[in-house]
Amino acid sequence: LVHGGGKLATELANRLDISQQMHEGRRITDADTLYVVTMVYAGWINKNIVAQLQARGVSGVGLCGADAALIPAVRRPVKTIDYGFVGDVLHDRINTNYLLQLLSAGQAPVIAPISADATGQLLNINADTIAQSLAIALAATGEAVQLIYSFDRAGVLRDVEQPDSLISSIDPATYELLKAEGAIHSGMIPKLDNAFAAVRQGVKKVVLGRAEQLPELLAGKAGTAIVG
Amino acid sequence: LVHGGGKLATELANRLDISQQMHEGRRITDADTLYVVTMVYAGWINKNIVAQLQARGVSGVGLCGADAALIPAVRRPVKTIDYGFVGDVLHDRINTNYLLQLLSAGQAPVIAPISADATGQLLNINADTIAQSLAIALAATGEAVQLIYSFDRAGVLRDVEQPDSLISSIDPATYELLKAEGAIHSGMIPKLDNAFAAVRQGVKKVVLGRAEQLPELLAGKAGTAIVG
Repeated sequence: LVHGGGKLATELANRLDISQQMHEGRRITDADTLYVVTMVYAGWINKNIVAQLQARGVSGVGLCGADAALIPAVRRPVKTIDYGFVGDVLHDRINTNYLLQLLSAGQAPVIAPISADATGQLLNINADTIAQSLAIALAATGEAVQLIYSFDRAGVLRDVEQPDSLISSIDPATYELLKAEGAIHSGMIPKLDNAFAAVRQGVKKVVLGRAEQLPELLAGKAGTAIVG
Repeated sequence: LVHGGGKLATELANRLDISQQMHEGRRITDADTLYVVTMVYAGWINKNIVAQLQARGVSGVGLCGADAALIPAVRRPVKTIDYGFVGDVLHDRINTNYLLQLLSAGQAPVIAPISADATGQLLNINADTIAQSLAIALAATGEAVQLIYSFDRAGVLRDVEQPDSLISSIDPATYELLKAEGAIHSGMIPKLDNAFAAVRQGVKKVVLGRAEQLPELLAGKAGTAIVG
């Protein structure tokens, strides 16, 4: 379970008078913002999710990418934009052994989108990217991996205003068409790019939909399936 | 490794205009304070320690008491003082198996002093108490446990103003005498009560001293040893 927490992070940043800058849906992470997101994601949200899981009979372990060197990262190189303390995942160094050990011990890994580089510098990483990276790394070990992106919509909609315009499956050609039409835009683009990359790299099933419909999403009865 | 973070928590609470009340060195934890301490302890401090350990070649996993149901707790009953969201450890339900698994896998557990009750309510617990509870629970499994309380002094001092007045070992009779003289007071009393309780309950060695002198503390060449 990989979670984010952008709304709560923005709220805390506002209370602390730390101004937030976004670039194409990604948070520019200066030192003050790193402090905020680490506290909100790896502290408040992560531990509340774990405690709520335990209360529901599911044992979980709350982690960030630094724990057990789960998701080694490097600070993103500055090209046109300096994202600050934002990390890029070192895909071939993901500690899948540790994840598989947790899963086989019956512990649900609950992962906050924070990691660190080799110097111990904490870094902020997009949660969708972490979910995709972990799914691809687990698929490479031979596991049949399902990746469910859950958010506050029923899936990819042809018209955001029309909840009944759900697209039940989408292939790359349809995706390009809907982007060209403007039906898919802004925050959905990095999410879908991530989803298509996962399918291309061996993840068995990728679905987007509402968190509340998780059983239906897993059963293929809700959401938008990504077709490679 | 059990850590606290009281100074940073107080600093963040001040920035957020959340007033802090202490009672006999213990923080009264209302809902706003719980938010602050969870973020600071389990988020910022915990993940920075883990990242710094990884950078030094020590693999660690950052946890709170809710993770893997490591330290089940109950909210402290209200007697004369309502401590708010403060937990009491359920000593006989500590998940020592999980701790021993981590240690045998070469992972250092890094533990923030936050846990949860059976309803998923997060709770704030004194870090010294958690350290003592874990040491006693590990000792009961047959391990030869050393408990090192590290802080910003060389150990128990006969005169706080005189760094060379270190008491190299202390027994219960000397402790009572020094309390009566007023040489030991305030924050040192719960710390030493914890330390003596650990020795009485099977912890092999308990030492107090400076974090910077950890090798000397382990070797018995620095700090104050607690004698049962």
